[in-house]
Amino acid sequence: MQNFKIVIQYDGTRYNGWQKQKSTDNTIQGKLEAILLKMTGNPVEVNGSGRTDAGVHAVGQVANFHLSLEDICVFAPYLPRDCQKIPEDMQEQLTTDLENYFNQYLPADIAVLSVELVHPRFHSRLSAVSKIYCYRLMTENGKNVFERQYISTIPETLDMEAVRQAAAYLIGTHDFKSFCSNKHMKKSTVRTVTEIQITTKGKEIQFLYKGNGFLYNMVRILTGTLVEVGLGKRKPEEIPQILEAKNRAAAGMLMPARGLSLIEVNY
Amino acid sequence: MQNFKIVIQYDGTRYNGWQKQKSTDNTIQGKLEAILLKMTGNPVEVNGSGRTDAGVHAVGQVANFHLSLEDICVFAPYLPRDCQKIPEDMQEQLTTDLENYFNQYLPADIAVLSVELVHPRFHSRLSAVSKIYCYRLMTENGKNVFERQYISTIPETLDMEAVRQAAAYLIGTHDFKSFCSNKHMKKSTVRTVTEIQITTKGKEIQFLYKGNGFLYNMVRILTGTLVEVGLGKRKPEEIPQILEAKNRAAAGMLMPARGLSLIEVNY
Repeated sequence: MQNFKIVIQYDGTRYNGWQKQKSTDNTIQGKLEAILLKMTGNPVEVNGSGRTDAGVHAVGQVANFHLSLEDICVFAPYLPRDCQKIPEDMQEQLTTDLENYFNQYLPADIAVLSVELVHPRFHSRLSAVSKIYCYRLMTENGKNVFERQYISTIPETLDMEAVRQAAAYLIGTHDFKSFCSNKHMKKSTVRTVTEIQITTKGKEIQFLYKGNGFLYNMVRILTGTLVEVGLGKRKPEEIPQILEAKNRAAAGMLMPARGLSLIEVNY
Repeated sequence: MQNFKIVIQYDGTRYNGWQKQKSTDNTIQGKLEAILLKMTGNPVEVNGSGRTDAGVHAVGQVANFHLSLEDICVFAPYLPRDCQKIPEDMQEQLTTDLENYFNQYLPADIAVLSVELVHPRFHSRLSAVSKIYCYRLMTENGKNVFERQYISTIPETLDMEAVRQAAAYLIGTHDFKSFCSNKHMKKSTVRTVTEIQITTKGKEIQFLYKGNGFLYNMVRILTGTLVEVGLGKRKPEEIPQILEAKNRAAAGMLMPARGLSLIEVNY
């Protein structure tokens, strides 16, 4: 089996998130797997680096999948028959052809940016070292006509000094259980957030989070909590108590999905 | 009467163009006038710098409209009653309030970027000195997931050298009748195109047109003709004959509206 790594970009607006569901194929994973099924005639599982929720976007989601040499040879008849591996000088042609095949059948709001042959043990989720997410928020009834699908809005102004102070408390290795929507999470909820960059661009605020992993809804709850600090509903100094509580009810609101994008996954 | 200049941004995808129509108010002008009617209780005409067709976007469309001092005073009760003009130190407050009022009632795909008090004789169309339009085209089945609404696509590759040669013939003052969809145009069809900048960004090509004015559908037909040159269907040297013909049938295809944006209007 050959292992392929793909980088995928999508506008999540009209999808039920990354993960394939039984009841519907209106998911990113479902769309990709349908194309591989069409191509090979066999079911092929596409492993994502992580689920993105319904309505969340990705600038650079990463996934991997395995194809048998037999299926590859049917797809790319220029490869030598009965070869044990893909000749090095034909790899670029093959990955380019796969990329074009995906993009030909994918709708306009999903694109495969690259296809790469990788080590058999590469796994998009388990091999990931860090991830970057960005949450975009428009304040004070500001507008961004052309990127409105990728930005949440609130009518108020935020106290940015307070927001930045609160964000500083979140940096580091903590138990982020209070910032996780999954109440029955059995695995560890300890994660390391290495960086929170907050930048303003007119009335728009961008929250960039870098960390070794993020829990279910974590970025949206982190942002909701920072927004509540910015609105004066909470004090920056309350953040340590919220972490301490290890209780979802202690943290702030869940921000809408539309403002969130998975920017990149690093290996 | 006070004269206001506004700069407007819109995603034209779901509108029937700039110009108000009798049968529908689903136009940009119609949306703006509806808000001024709501504000003043009186019909107010909004003059655009030019019509954009159904589906065409604007990064910086300009328009102007007149309001009576009476209507302004009702809207902005902080202004002195019975004043003959708006006190200079209150102009900024007034224009900001007007901008916010527009944006509060406009849908998310239309925004007013600025409101300015201007000279009574300023007219957004008649006072305009030049305009810049941009046509965005994705070639070779390339994809731009997040800006797909603003880009047309063709599956082929273009010969960019030929496209640039052809564009050079279009620069200058010409009768552009061949590049105008309006067969019954009674006014002059002579226009000056001062600049055509063609840039590529991966598989995307951007055609930037600067000129003193553009005829009905002119930018889309200019681009269609350049695309046909790029596809090898026409030679760059045929451009002078096309201009000479003064006949719409001599020029190339009309490109789809979605790729076109009015970038700016200069005064």
